[in-house]
Amino acid sequence: MTERQYHVDGDLVPASEATVHVSDRGFKYGDAAFETVRVYGGTLFRWDAHLDRLADTCEILSLDHGLSRANLRSRVAAVLDANDLADASIRLSITRGPDTGGIVPSEEIDPTVVVTCRPLPRGGRESESTWDGPATLQTVKTRRPPDRALPSKAKTHNYLNGVLAGLELRVTGADEALILDMDGSVAEGTTSNCFFVDDRALHTPSLEGPVLPGVTRDVVLDLAQSEGLPVRTGRYTPDDFRSADEVFLTSSTREIRPVGTVDGIDVDGGPVTPLLSRLYDALVERECYAVESADESGSTGDSETGDDPSSSQ
Amino acid sequence: MTERQYHVDGDLVPASEATVHVSDRGFKYGDAAFETVRVYGGTLFRWDAHLDRLADTCEILSLDHGLSRANLRSRVAAVLDANDLADASIRLSITRGPDTGGIVPSEEIDPTVVVTCRPLPRGGRESESTWDGPATLQTVKTRRPPDRALPSKAKTHNYLNGVLAGLELRVTGADEALILDMDGSVAEGTTSNCFFVDDRALHTPSLEGPVLPGVTRDVVLDLAQSEGLPVRTGRYTPDDFRSADEVFLTSSTREIRPVGTVDGIDVDGGPVTPLLSRLYDALVERECYAVESADESGSTGDSETGDDPSSSQ
Repeated sequence: MTERQYHVDGDLVPASEATVHVSDRGFKYGDAAFETVRVYGGTLFRWDAHLDRLADTCEILSLDHGLSRANLRSRVAAVLDANDLADASIRLSITRGPDTGGIVPSEEIDPTVVVTCRPLPRGGRESESTWDGPATLQTVKTRRPPDRALPSKAKTHNYLNGVLAGLELRVTGADEALILDMDGSVAEGTTSNCFFVDDRALHTPSLEGPVLPGVTRDVVLDLAQSEGLPVRTGRYTPDDFRSADEVFLTSSTREIRPVGTVDGIDVDGGPVTPLLSRLYDALVERECYAVESADESGSTGDSETGDDPSSSQ
Repeated sequence: MTERQYHVDGDLVPASEATVHVSDRGFKYGDAAFETVRVYGGTLFRWDAHLDRLADTCEILSLDHGLSRANLRSRVAAVLDANDLADASIRLSITRGPDTGGIVPSEEIDPTVVVTCRPLPRGGRESESTWDGPATLQTVKTRRPPDRALPSKAKTHNYLNGVLAGLELRVTGADEALILDMDGSVAEGTTSNCFFVDDRALHTPSLEGPVLPGVTRDVVLDLAQSEGLPVRTGRYTPDDFRSADEVFLTSSTREIRPVGTVDGIDVDGGPVTPLLSRLYDALVERECYAVESADESGSTGDSETGDDPSSSQ
């Protein structure tokens, strides 16, 4: 098996040689934006939504990288082609580049762009699941930073808050943390958004709180609404999750992962989570695999990775 | 002139080849501890205090790197030797190493240690200053994260909060930001601690707030107390700084930098700041250069960099 290929600063390189300089601001300060994108059958799922959020992150950071969407797309396509990957997860990072003037960045920057990839089964009904059964969720002491300190709408390499929350899980072995904001309302998981279902509606914390606007979160809200499910966003306590009929997590890599217990309390087992999972699976089928069937290529090569995924949304 | 040498993961390498892997947690998450240490005449100033703080950071991060102080010291010594540096600033980073299990780190880690250096004049009375005249200080909107979100006592690669504060300075061109905590009390600068003098005492924000326990901050507090100056730590408003007789900043690289204006208001000109600067300079002379004079080597080579700086404290 040949070595995986990554894309660093404009070039494909063997994964083992994929490095950034120690003076890169992405390393020294976590001064970088990133996105994790799912690839299904060679098609980037919701690529435009990821690019929109990446643009928002870069605007919040005043990180004016000057690279077009087509340019970023070509780097990702090069990685998918080089690795002959159809079902995968890719990570695209843009750093502010070399540190020239100390912590206050220069206006002129030479950004570093990194694209890595890993194979990931499709999940859903058609493939091996990307997770093991329902998750255990645990409320942690670490709180999400307020927006005035670190803007929650920016997806950056400053991920220590999530790491600290994750470290709290070591004792119980829980799968994901339920992180609260400074006021004690539920915000999100370390790398996921969280939902619960009660007898009235599907609920998820509002983006008015320190909550990352998850691409999968948006997809799920749209699916629920188009199915006529009542949807509410707001401020919720951990007790709202513990006393819910169903709880699930969303992220690009996990899609919709059911939660079995919250702080040890059983919340597993209702019709809404499996329904949304089926709808999600059908959406992926429509947006990504239907293209492939249509042109009957059956391959996962250039033609799919070259498609504009926005056309399938 | 030969290329500078850095130390990465156990080896001296030319600076241009000093890199970390893109899957290193120091890059992906800013999951790393660091210290910036001054070197005067080949002696590491307050090395033990920096190692103490590094240990505190690693404990907060549960980053059990397993490396002895002697091991870290030997890497720093190798860099100073290889670059023939006597007056310098070195940066020592320890990351949690390769990302193996996602955001929740494995207990067993393979840390990455990076030591970089740059020449820096001694400053003080004996040498070129490391800064240009009194600083302009400006209150910014970005607030320091609360300890429950990101512990202020940990010096890590998650520095975006300071970067965002620094970006606010672009408009006015101020030299340093005065960053407040969530309650509106002054915390610190982006990379410095801040002090003011009024007719009663020398004041600096208490470590009970989200304030990094600066090594230079400690030195200055000790110097003031040993000189019989009244010293107070507490919670202060930006107005306390704006209406002060004198304001100054401290950091390892800048030592004591006087402040000329706070939010455009003149605060420059009193006897305490120059007095403390003279005392600081004399301390550096005693702790670092006196050793050199004593053995009459006059050189800045192995013998000095090999000295145990703890013996001179």
